[in-house]
Amino acid sequence: MNNTEENIKVDEAPVNKPEETLLQVQSLIKNDDKSGLAELLEPQSKSQLANLLDSFPPQQKEQVWQDIPENIKGEVLAEVSDQTRSTLMSEMNSDQVSKLTIDLNAQDISEILDKADNDLKNQVIENLDSNKREQIQTIVNYTDKVIGRYMNPQTINVRENTTLETVQRFIRIKGLLTGQPQEIMVVDKDGKLLGILSMVDLIKQNQNALVSEFMTQAVSLVDTLNIHEASTILRSKSLFFAPVVNKENILLGQLNIHDVMEITQHESDTMLMNMQKVNESDELFSSIFSSTKSRGIWLGINLATAFLAAYVIGQFEAVLSQVVALAVLMPIVASMGGIAGSQTLTIIIRGLAMGQIGGNNRLWLFNKELWVGAGNGLIWAFVVAIIAQLWFNDIKISLVISAAVAINMTAANISGITIPLILKKLNIDPALSGAVILTTVTDVVGFVSFLGLATLFLLK
Amino acid sequence: MNNTEENIKVDEAPVNKPEETLLQVQSLIKNDDKSGLAELLEPQSKSQLANLLDSFPPQQKEQVWQDIPENIKGEVLAEVSDQTRSTLMSEMNSDQVSKLTIDLNAQDISEILDKADNDLKNQVIENLDSNKREQIQTIVNYTDKVIGRYMNPQTINVRENTTLETVQRFIRIKGLLTGQPQEIMVVDKDGKLLGILSMVDLIKQNQNALVSEFMTQAVSLVDTLNIHEASTILRSKSLFFAPVVNKENILLGQLNIHDVMEITQHESDTMLMNMQKVNESDELFSSIFSSTKSRGIWLGINLATAFLAAYVIGQFEAVLSQVVALAVLMPIVASMGGIAGSQTLTIIIRGLAMGQIGGNNRLWLFNKELWVGAGNGLIWAFVVAIIAQLWFNDIKISLVISAAVAINMTAANISGITIPLILKKLNIDPALSGAVILTTVTDVVGFVSFLGLATLFLLK
Repeated sequence: MNNTEENIKVDEAPVNKPEETLLQVQSLIKNDDKSGLAELLEPQSKSQLANLLDSFPPQQKEQVWQDIPENIKGEVLAEVSDQTRSTLMSEMNSDQVSKLTIDLNAQDISEILDKADNDLKNQVIENLDSNKREQIQTIVNYTDKVIGRYMNPQTINVRENTTLETVQRFIRIKGLLTGQPQEIMVVDKDGKLLGILSMVDLIKQNQNALVSEFMTQAVSLVDTLNIHEASTILRSKSLFFAPVVNKENILLGQLNIHDVMEITQHESDTMLMNMQKVNESDELFSSIFSSTKSRGIWLGINLATAFLAAYVIGQFEAVLSQVVALAVLMPIVASMGGIAGSQTLTIIIRGLAMGQIGGNNRLWLFNKELWVGAGNGLIWAFVVAIIAQLWFNDIKISLVISAAVAINMTAANISGITIPLILKKLNIDPALSGAVILTTVTDVVGFVSFLGLATLFLLK
Repeated sequence: MNNTEENIKVDEAPVNKPEETLLQVQSLIKNDDKSGLAELLEPQSKSQLANLLDSFPPQQKEQVWQDIPENIKGEVLAEVSDQTRSTLMSEMNSDQVSKLTIDLNAQDISEILDKADNDLKNQVIENLDSNKREQIQTIVNYTDKVIGRYMNPQTINVRENTTLETVQRFIRIKGLLTGQPQEIMVVDKDGKLLGILSMVDLIKQNQNALVSEFMTQAVSLVDTLNIHEASTILRSKSLFFAPVVNKENILLGQLNIHDVMEITQHESDTMLMNMQKVNESDELFSSIFSSTKSRGIWLGINLATAFLAAYVIGQFEAVLSQVVALAVLMPIVASMGGIAGSQTLTIIIRGLAMGQIGGNNRLWLFNKELWVGAGNGLIWAFVVAIIAQLWFNDIKISLVISAAVAINMTAANISGITIPLILKKLNIDPALSGAVILTTVTDVVGFVSFLGLATLFLLK
């Protein structure tokens, strides 16, 4: 009975914006106001608390952690980022971890133990009851790329020759449903999945009818299915629940909307970060050492491509030493190509991720990008020519740079569609390496066309 | 009764991958196989069909559209991208649109009519029954930035002094619930929201109990709340449903998980596209003209910043005309700074979006980024110095470029955190303009430090 609590009405300036909670917590910690902190943290959800912990530098995470209500600590620990979890767990022994995990579901426990050291992992698992131990053993046997790792092994299973009324009573007596809505699984005596019964039908339909009458076909996912495929399927079918089965169609668990949203969000994040040359593991409050290292890899790759561009420029020393204006204008050609190419690349990578590119529409898209590149190339070449003419008052230079801009922007758009399509064919993630290859192409084409044309028409 | 249908089991190579369906549809169209096409399209969900329509060039969309089952056409039209919808609707008169929309909910109808011309819009609305017309009038009065626009005005409302059993019977008799699970709203006689009853409790709890016993407090969202705020709140509270009320707490509708996922996905997409300098409206199959125009804006802005960088280089003509190696190595300094800065920018923008940055952690982050920048700056400066020395065999040039790389990478990281924080304070979206400003800074700092140091130490 909690109808005495007040509804929270969120107006234009929501009371619980995460950044405002963060500021409040910071000031309570600063004033060492323990009771104020406890009061503020108490009504927060596990995701809010996890997000809050993720918002503190390593040294201060421990302080916030201590004031998180004991009964929710385990769930919060399963929800925080890898880096926060390893910071918090570095201070814990296996007894403390066991205490936190004892009431959690197998999914959360596996998440918490995922990157823990083996001694601690084994001891915590040993302290669990045999049923949960078995579930965890199942989960940790999957890699983190397949859905078996993310499924919830607890499902509500019923037989098809039961009445809806009996199912409702069964759920009530066993106290089964908790938290968010879920589907009810219909299985045969061997545990094979026959179909699903939706909660909506369970409530809505004639209660004396049999489950078999309202059981619907299920889109079931095999446990070894890749998470990306699974999230594409669930989204495209507008499904929010899916049973997970093994190859023999034995029901193993369910993937629910929480998991799907998490996977989807994770995918979008990864794509964004990869396109900006950031590793997934590089978090806001990662240590200086680990951030330096993880970003260093991309910087090294970039340096190699930058030296390749420099090498190309080096081939034109003769004309560069005669006409200094070329060195001044040179970056403009590369930059315009870089932006045009990255615009095309982004749109193509997004289309590939949504499965919208294939077969004969590739030619249409190639054609479109070619003309968009040539169109914008001509427009901006004209603008560049006018500015260059006003600046250097040398018609040859103006013509050379304007031709180079038009060539490079057209080439950039062609590369922006060709590179990701080729990478996809080679089974390489275009979001990961597409941008690096593209920049190399636009730099090289830009410098070669600009300095090459200059050598032809300007070199005395 | 549909238990005779087979379950669809999705194995490692899912049968219904969107790109494979696309290829099949393409070849069926090519072979003019009408019945094969109908058979393939029939079992597809509305999102699958919408994604499929979005995967065809404008001229071919009409062909696919004709073979989509009539009973789902309206829902599909509400689901496709803006560009697909305007292509398809350009061929329809108001009677045809009315026929498609007659059975849709108010949300879908408003979506379809959103960008239609006023004559058609008015005629279609006139053809609806008064109840739906009123609902639509309510929805279209909201801008597309607030949740009122996305809420479903249809809710299941009950009173608090009813028993659970009565609620279940009420739902059954009225045939209320359809599709996905939802919450049940508890309102008073004036329509004011008192709380919500979850479907889980409706099934699980003692059926003779009163609604008031299991009614829980609701996080209700005011209709004029910004969609970004709403999605942050729902995600952080792990909520999948929220009642929408007006300022007087009168229940207006509900925001459900479909809407939240859509908003969240839309936000991630927009952030990715903006950071890559692509407008939201630039779709895969947009026309050449509209893509050229929408990308042109970003290209123009980029040209301005590129000319600024060229102007900076122009200030160092003296040293450039004496030492041609500078022109060759110059892009390396700008490029390394650009990447380092964009890595920091990405991590900070993500942290801001999650509300994890504020108060005294900004100093910690500033300090971290400074040292990561300096650390990677020194490491890569050293590598650059060695390669430059091997290439040009001039210790002064090697020292100058290595100092410039270290300076620019450090400045880049500082800018990568400072720029988004300042933009946020000025209420400008950092994802939209952060990258342009950052590139300008890393170009200018890179060229000034490299060519400036060269002027000091190399100019004879």
